[in-house]
Amino acid sequence: MSTETAPAETGFVQPEVDVPALKRVLDGKYAAVRDLVRDNLVDHQQVLEEAETLDAEAFRERVKDIVLSLAATGQTGMGFPEEYGGGADIGASVAAFETMAYGDLSVLVKVGVQFGLFGGAILQLGTQRHHEAYLADLISGRTVGCFAMTETGHGSNVQALGTVATYDVEAQEFVITTPDDASRKDYIGNAARHADVAVVFAQLEIAGHSEGVHAFVVPLREGGQLLPGVRIEDCGRKIGLNGVDNGRIWFDQVRVPRTALLNEFADVTPAGVYESAIENPNRRFFTMLGTLVQGRVCVGGAGINAAKVAMAVAIKYAGHRRQFEATEGAGEQLLLDYGMHQRRLLPLLARTYALHCAQEVVAGELHDVFSGITGDEESRRSLESRAAGTKALGTWHATTTIQECREACGGAGYLSVNRFDALRADTDVFTTFEGDNHVLLQLVAKGLLTDYSSEFSDLDQLGMVRFVAGLAVDTVIEKTNAHKLLERLRDVLPGGDQWDQEAGLLDGNYQMAMFEFREEHLIGGVARRLKRGIDNKMDPGEVFSRVQDHVIAAARAHVERLVLDAFLAKFRGMEEGHNKVALGLLVDLYALSEIERDRAWFMEHGRLTTQRSKAITREIGDLCRKLRPIAEDLVDAFDIPDAMLRAEIIGD
Amino acid sequence: MSTETAPAETGFVQPEVDVPALKRVLDGKYAAVRDLVRDNLVDHQQVLEEAETLDAEAFRERVKDIVLSLAATGQTGMGFPEEYGGGADIGASVAAFETMAYGDLSVLVKVGVQFGLFGGAILQLGTQRHHEAYLADLISGRTVGCFAMTETGHGSNVQALGTVATYDVEAQEFVITTPDDASRKDYIGNAARHADVAVVFAQLEIAGHSEGVHAFVVPLREGGQLLPGVRIEDCGRKIGLNGVDNGRIWFDQVRVPRTALLNEFADVTPAGVYESAIENPNRRFFTMLGTLVQGRVCVGGAGINAAKVAMAVAIKYAGHRRQFEATEGAGEQLLLDYGMHQRRLLPLLARTYALHCAQEVVAGELHDVFSGITGDEESRRSLESRAAGTKALGTWHATTTIQECREACGGAGYLSVNRFDALRADTDVFTTFEGDNHVLLQLVAKGLLTDYSSEFSDLDQLGMVRFVAGLAVDTVIEKTNAHKLLERLRDVLPGGDQWDQEAGLLDGNYQMAMFEFREEHLIGGVARRLKRGIDNKMDPGEVFSRVQDHVIAAARAHVERLVLDAFLAKFRGMEEGHNKVALGLLVDLYALSEIERDRAWFMEHGRLTTQRSKAITREIGDLCRKLRPIAEDLVDAFDIPDAMLRAEIIGD
Repeated sequence: MSTETAPAETGFVQPEVDVPALKRVLDGKYAAVRDLVRDNLVDHQQVLEEAETLDAEAFRERVKDIVLSLAATGQTGMGFPEEYGGGADIGASVAAFETMAYGDLSVLVKVGVQFGLFGGAILQLGTQRHHEAYLADLISGRTVGCFAMTETGHGSNVQALGTVATYDVEAQEFVITTPDDASRKDYIGNAARHADVAVVFAQLEIAGHSEGVHAFVVPLREGGQLLPGVRIEDCGRKIGLNGVDNGRIWFDQVRVPRTALLNEFADVTPAGVYESAIENPNRRFFTMLGTLVQGRVCVGGAGINAAKVAMAVAIKYAGHRRQFEATEGAGEQLLLDYGMHQRRLLPLLARTYALHCAQEVVAGELHDVFSGITGDEESRRSLESRAAGTKALGTWHATTTIQECREACGGAGYLSVNRFDALRADTDVFTTFEGDNHVLLQLVAKGLLTDYSSEFSDLDQLGMVRFVAGLAVDTVIEKTNAHKLLERLRDVLPGGDQWDQEAGLLDGNYQMAMFEFREEHLIGGVARRLKRGIDNKMDPGEVFSRVQDHVIAAARAHVERLVLDAFLAKFRGMEEGHNKVALGLLVDLYALSEIERDRAWFMEHGRLTTQRSKAITREIGDLCRKLRPIAEDLVDAFDIPDAMLRAEIIGD
Repeated sequence: MSTETAPAETGFVQPEVDVPALKRVLDGKYAAVRDLVRDNLVDHQQVLEEAETLDAEAFRERVKDIVLSLAATGQTGMGFPEEYGGGADIGASVAAFETMAYGDLSVLVKVGVQFGLFGGAILQLGTQRHHEAYLADLISGRTVGCFAMTETGHGSNVQALGTVATYDVEAQEFVITTPDDASRKDYIGNAARHADVAVVFAQLEIAGHSEGVHAFVVPLREGGQLLPGVRIEDCGRKIGLNGVDNGRIWFDQVRVPRTALLNEFADVTPAGVYESAIENPNRRFFTMLGTLVQGRVCVGGAGINAAKVAMAVAIKYAGHRRQFEATEGAGEQLLLDYGMHQRRLLPLLARTYALHCAQEVVAGELHDVFSGITGDEESRRSLESRAAGTKALGTWHATTTIQECREACGGAGYLSVNRFDALRADTDVFTTFEGDNHVLLQLVAKGLLTDYSSEFSDLDQLGMVRFVAGLAVDTVIEKTNAHKLLERLRDVLPGGDQWDQEAGLLDGNYQMAMFEFREEHLIGGVARRLKRGIDNKMDPGEVFSRVQDHVIAAARAHVERLVLDAFLAKFRGMEEGHNKVALGLLVDLYALSEIERDRAWFMEHGRLTTQRSKAITREIGDLCRKLRPIAEDLVDAFDIPDAMLRAEIIGD
């Protein structure tokens, strides 16, 4: 009833989705890898139930066993060099990881710890001696490792870590020490039970002089027994991911040989001379960290794919669950025929598709940069920024979507069997780990403000304020001069200076123009505010504190523009036909929903009349009605194996 | 640094909070009851850890034991008549229940099932014979009961339940039957293990004629063994509340005596004649349901108090956790000194206070209506509407607040010991049970549209559309004529017709005027849209579907106005001094945050200029800075026992 639009009225013909073809579009280049992972997920489907039935210890062991058996299929080693048993395809490794998010997320995260964090650190920060010593064994799972960076007192601010590695020139050894409880390593996956070895981040001290944070390979256990000087405590029960054994580590004068330093970017000679090709310590540090960007790309993708599972359950449920009579004699109405229910779910579905496309772009950039296809500094900076932003938006999207889908399934959604329990609990920390989302957005903003001319990953906020106060701010203000943007828009949009009133709401160029205008205006605004504060001799901390919400808003606007860009590019690249029409509806719904969400800002800044704002809201209602008949097809195109949906409530 | 406001600038003097005095303001009339509950919570503090360490079966038994021992303290029976061992004070029983939400929520919900739902049904729907047979035993916990209303296929739409109770005139018995799996009772607390007896809602059939849904007392177990004809299945693991044994029940020709009908509102004579003082079946049904409103009041209050726990943990953590250097040489900065962190937490704190005050009003109305102090129809309708609205807003607030607080505590927030795990998981279903929040807001809207002249609780949406299509709509449109409101505002606000531009942002009358304008405009708009649809001969289901988001928005605006009303009244009633100044900051922050959230709507409807909208955003920043130094005092005034906060991260 509410689902048909008369073609005569608008020229719109309701598309019929070719699901397998749309799946191919979504799976893209790595379709075969994704299908391998789907098969592996089905092979281990029992783990979804075991997450509920096994006790914590048994479940940890079970997850470890699955990770080892996945390693044997090659699924988890795709990003490593072939000579050590890897697949030498970074893009494939990201695709494999993302797709794993359809299944149990403790398995996913344990894979991330072993092959992404630990393996990635050995590969990227180590040199041949480390690769030869560890890679083959860690790829096969014979050696289990952990990534000991975060400390209780130091999360986002890695440069302030307290663990110390002192070089003992006599013994040619580093002595690793935890000076206080704030410096104990914390939340470290694999530490509580399974790790044989850790990559430990510590302040390197040579002859009383600190060289900043470096990474060292430190054995933790032999034959399952802790080595002398290593103390480990279990982090205990967590909101989710209880199949991962997170622990706390203290080091008491633990000695490792000089060669334990992962020395790709810096080394210490036997005589105790510090050497590095990168002179600036800050730059050196963030170059090291920058090589670990793959973790962020993977977590963002995992969040987006976990959201797909929630969407599939909620939309399928709403497609057969009836409640209340709404039309006389028609019996109870399907939930998905209610306007409010469409409004709750379908914009989230559109955003899931949008983020999928954005994720494809960032994964592609990662592949290109780390495969040496594009190796320049600018590509790296762009990748780091995009990875940070996509991770933040993708993981927040997971949190929001899973919650809304749970509520949309009512009491049934509260039963663990219907998937939302694990999805919610396990993904919750995604917004925090691999970089707190707010901190990541600050990084993105910093890159925009400084035009990537400072170290992107330099987290020091003081530095940010100082930097902006100096030379760059005028450049930023000049660069973000809305005037130039508006001139350009005149060429692509009808209406001349009135483009924001004349262009069609469903014109992709109009949508993009709105996103671009907002981004540029916000970035310029942040620069001006920071400069004004400094010029008024305000305390830099105070300046930053007061501008912080604008900083976050500017970064978010930038990332949303990247998302729309990716989504529009995907849409425009499709061959004509029903699937393209369907994707076009999703693009419009994503773009207009985002403009609607922030319509107050657009009105405040003169880019949206109140009439047009209301028209956008109406258009969103129309788009929802057009998408309603194909909503189930659109989640089917995610090709989530039935066993992964599990949900009793969508059974027939 | 960022926390001091120069008095010279604004005349504002930073208040110092008298925490014990503010606690007294919040605890109100039932301070002694709340303190009794606090003591009992501390006595059973171990349960917070046991929720993590015991297996599901053992934890259920533990929770049952605690509920029984609480019953012995009198805490759980305060709402029942004295002659059966109760406390004869309904307001006290709500205060006790709300305060329990500081502790383990399985205990809270099991108390709600036994004393609220089961006990409430016996008390309100039963007559003396049922009171004598059950009340003393259920108050003491000797008899454990459950409330078997919801079915797998029928949640919100209770009138469509499938379970049948056929009167057998020969045997003078009712025969209870579950005709199909969609009609099995589902999610029933206490059913899986502990309930001896159930109040079962079923379609009453006499001589082939259906009299609609009625409630019957049906024994389920004797000596722990299921009785013949009763089949029960465990619902299994849930997102949270795993200390409550939810189950599914099927009845196969289960016979109960004629006297098992809870016959306060209708009865069946031995000869099988149906009798009721309320002629209209619809009205009768909703009169029965209306007596059960206490459950909604209690759940809303529990959600608000659970949010207080999350706020306390996050604000105390932010008050001592440092991250990043923001001012040269000042060391790392406290989280609570960051503008963004203030922005994330302090408006939620203000809203928590606002909802606390709204909850106090609805609990007071409940007390008055059910103690016979105000017994008229209008008071009942007002209570039902307010209870539905406060429940919806209070429980959504819990979900939002707990999530934001978790994220604001980073990785530490992910550890179960720091409370967010249980808070999130256990409260998640609050938005669904005791009435799905969206359905509840539709009820609120319906009451507003029909001026409470139809049955408030009549959930039939078809009826709503039909009703509005008729006589009432013109009345609604007349009543919500913005003109009259605007005339009235001219008298209380400066600026005449320009009140919305001239009045001070911190003027409570201005804030209220904005809330009132929005409410009236939205209600009138819904009425007009519904009428237009009907006039255009659209299908009523289609009309409703298209207007549904406006319906929800109108209801929400109404409830927010009630919340501001309650908060302002509390503020205005306080004696002059620092605490009043502090509460005034919270009122302003709540009201302006709500206007800011919906500022697009106000701009679209000509009540907010873009300049003023931006000024509101700036004012919110100022208010956050003024509240920052007293934020910890403001959560201390909730007087949550330390043992309930548990959180390691706030230890000292």
